[in-house]
Amino acid sequence: MSSLQGNLLVAQSGGPTPVINASLAGVIAEALNHEDDIPEIYGALNGIHGVLNENLIDLAAESQQTLRALHHTPGAALGTCRYKVKKAEDFDRILQVFEAHNIRYFHYIGGNDSQDTAAKIDALAKERGYELRVIGVPKTIDNDLPLTDHSPGFGSVAKHIALTVREMSLDNAAMGQNDFVSVLEVMGRNAGWLAASSVLAHRRDKSDDKQVRNTHYSCSAPHIVLLPEVPFNADNFIRRVEEVLKSSGHCFVVVSEGVQDEAGNYLGADTSSTDAFGHAVLGGAGESLRNLVEERFSGVKARASKLGIAQRAASHSASKTDVDEAFLCGSEAVKAAVAGESGKMVIITRSEKENYGVNTLLAPLSEIANGVKAFPDKWIGEDRMSIHPDFVRYALPLIQGELQLPYEQGLPRYAQLSAIRVQRRLEKFVSA
Amino acid sequence: MSSLQGNLLVAQSGGPTPVINASLAGVIAEALNHEDDIPEIYGALNGIHGVLNENLIDLAAESQQTLRALHHTPGAALGTCRYKVKKAEDFDRILQVFEAHNIRYFHYIGGNDSQDTAAKIDALAKERGYELRVIGVPKTIDNDLPLTDHSPGFGSVAKHIALTVREMSLDNAAMGQNDFVSVLEVMGRNAGWLAASSVLAHRRDKSDDKQVRNTHYSCSAPHIVLLPEVPFNADNFIRRVEEVLKSSGHCFVVVSEGVQDEAGNYLGADTSSTDAFGHAVLGGAGESLRNLVEERFSGVKARASKLGIAQRAASHSASKTDVDEAFLCGSEAVKAAVAGESGKMVIITRSEKENYGVNTLLAPLSEIANGVKAFPDKWIGEDRMSIHPDFVRYALPLIQGELQLPYEQGLPRYAQLSAIRVQRRLEKFVSA
Repeated sequence: MSSLQGNLLVAQSGGPTPVINASLAGVIAEALNHEDDIPEIYGALNGIHGVLNENLIDLAAESQQTLRALHHTPGAALGTCRYKVKKAEDFDRILQVFEAHNIRYFHYIGGNDSQDTAAKIDALAKERGYELRVIGVPKTIDNDLPLTDHSPGFGSVAKHIALTVREMSLDNAAMGQNDFVSVLEVMGRNAGWLAASSVLAHRRDKSDDKQVRNTHYSCSAPHIVLLPEVPFNADNFIRRVEEVLKSSGHCFVVVSEGVQDEAGNYLGADTSSTDAFGHAVLGGAGESLRNLVEERFSGVKARASKLGIAQRAASHSASKTDVDEAFLCGSEAVKAAVAGESGKMVIITRSEKENYGVNTLLAPLSEIANGVKAFPDKWIGEDRMSIHPDFVRYALPLIQGELQLPYEQGLPRYAQLSAIRVQRRLEKFVSA
Repeated sequence: MSSLQGNLLVAQSGGPTPVINASLAGVIAEALNHEDDIPEIYGALNGIHGVLNENLIDLAAESQQTLRALHHTPGAALGTCRYKVKKAEDFDRILQVFEAHNIRYFHYIGGNDSQDTAAKIDALAKERGYELRVIGVPKTIDNDLPLTDHSPGFGSVAKHIALTVREMSLDNAAMGQNDFVSVLEVMGRNAGWLAASSVLAHRRDKSDDKQVRNTHYSCSAPHIVLLPEVPFNADNFIRRVEEVLKSSGHCFVVVSEGVQDEAGNYLGADTSSTDAFGHAVLGGAGESLRNLVEERFSGVKARASKLGIAQRAASHSASKTDVDEAFLCGSEAVKAAVAGESGKMVIITRSEKENYGVNTLLAPLSEIANGVKAFPDKWIGEDRMSIHPDFVRYALPLIQGELQLPYEQGLPRYAQLSAIRVQRRLEKFVSA
């Protein structure tokens, strides 16, 4: 493969994850190993917006300290956007900016919408004969990207949700109420991976093992898991709540924000507002179920919590496995590009060995771009409100390990980029 | 003071906190030091309910491992209740149970309602000539107990809220949206201490200090804090949101669940939005503000999160200072009782020294019982939506230090009591 000399540009896109900055760190760290091929390492501010507006920063100028702190910093250090590039003039502009700064390596850290953009940039460059290598880095807490075994970001949010369920269930149990329903609404617009991950909180007291018995905590929460893959039926749900209340005294429900009833309406959705992609804004699945429970059962108290943005920003409880894999995907993307690959995204495969381990491969961007990997039907329990143990075997390795965050004045210390601007070389861009 | 030989009974009451079990550990650990005075250490299951129903367990039989794990276990290991003892026959029964089990030391870990119960038990025992020593242990995340400088439980939830705000604000900033409002609803029905603690997330970038600059993160969130002590005025709020959006691009609002409008209605008690079932969604203060913002500003997007029970169960992010003080209050309660005190609660005083430190004193239960310490007016900013820096000086020491939790399979390992029952000596109690 012929070597290609030119600068690298990395950008972040879509909703932040607890580990999207670890992927950024991986890209930078690997790029630094290829000084001959890659003289400059740039970042675009706020995703493709930063490319269009020529808002580029010099990432090689950041300190090692900052680079290291990116591993545990939530948000997205470069900023992200939700802008979906459609217009031909936008794509023209992107290539102009690339040419002006001799960008030959482009890495977009994002989900399927972002990889769609990356695919189109790659295709256009090929068409125009502009030598460019585009390798995407997977990112989504929703775990719904196709082809990859799992997506960086999922493991950390899954861990945070399972942790939250376990903590809340201890609180619920302590209250000693016989008729209490706790509802936790979690993210997941189209796929139930995150809601399902709440079952990682389950734990059986190993009461046959006398030696460890005392420190082993038994957790049956969550009792009910509602996935967007399963149309919601109020009567079935209420019947199940009743059963759990009878047997356990209290009932813990985890509901995905994306759950719809049989008519296709989101539970508690405020249909009057939509986001930039025209998706309905979801807000009320949890509160909606709380209302339903209190209406159907007299004397039953229900409370809803909604982690919202807190769950995808919870770097303080990130999975070390996830952080390491996010970093790996970033560095593998650069390695692949330097080796001559383009138009592909790094995917994670699980090693066949007894102990959990991963390898990476490349998959065509075009196959990532518009697919959504739903939660597999075979992992949905017979009652359609529980999760098969095979999912636990799949997901448990992904939440292993904890970070040791540096604390300062009682709170974690995060990275903030110096963000030294790269001088603009083009006129201001005004999109029609 | 004459020594008193007899058994000790400890119980937990009200809403759990991240450190109520650390107080329990403090009681048990100190009681073990007084073998001559205190032959048996019992716990009542689910607070005063456990006393009434003679549901007692043998705490001295628990392993050292369990005792240690109580320091970081959320919920309430003995279980709690919200039952307020009022009937004379209930109090009679309590003394009968105490006599039957030779209980001479009683420690109730709880808030003002619980200390009211403790005060009445103490008074009745004195009246009947039953020698009993009652020393309360303070507990409330709301920090609204009178006389004590602060209450065990507050520091940990304050830390979790500040941590959550800082993490979420990084996510908000990353999205690069110019018109985004993030709303976080926190607990605190009567007092704004928890909402106020969100300002501990504030951080200025020390950009004059070149050496540390890169790893210092600047955080201006929250921009608006709404306390239950301040009647909510929609116009003033909207005006302030507008100002913040103009200057900062996005606006972070923290609202206490207990905020009421000028007519005394809780926010979110009268929303017109309906869910998939056609029912009004009573989403609470946070959702109500989200709706208000989106109604008043066209093109502004708002999102609400509601931590709910998760915030008071978040032992994984507990403040070590808080855990240590909760333990101290438990052990000091036993010391005071053994020394002959009764009818009092342990309170925390702040040492006058330059560095933060605490001492404990005793205050009469009767003065704790029915007071509520509102958030001080002098610490509410002039605009009534911000917090004075003096509060930060007060609260910052309370969130210092982190626990090293033992993890197992990716999640914290919590204590579960063996809960070996003490044999009943009385007939079953049926309250009229």
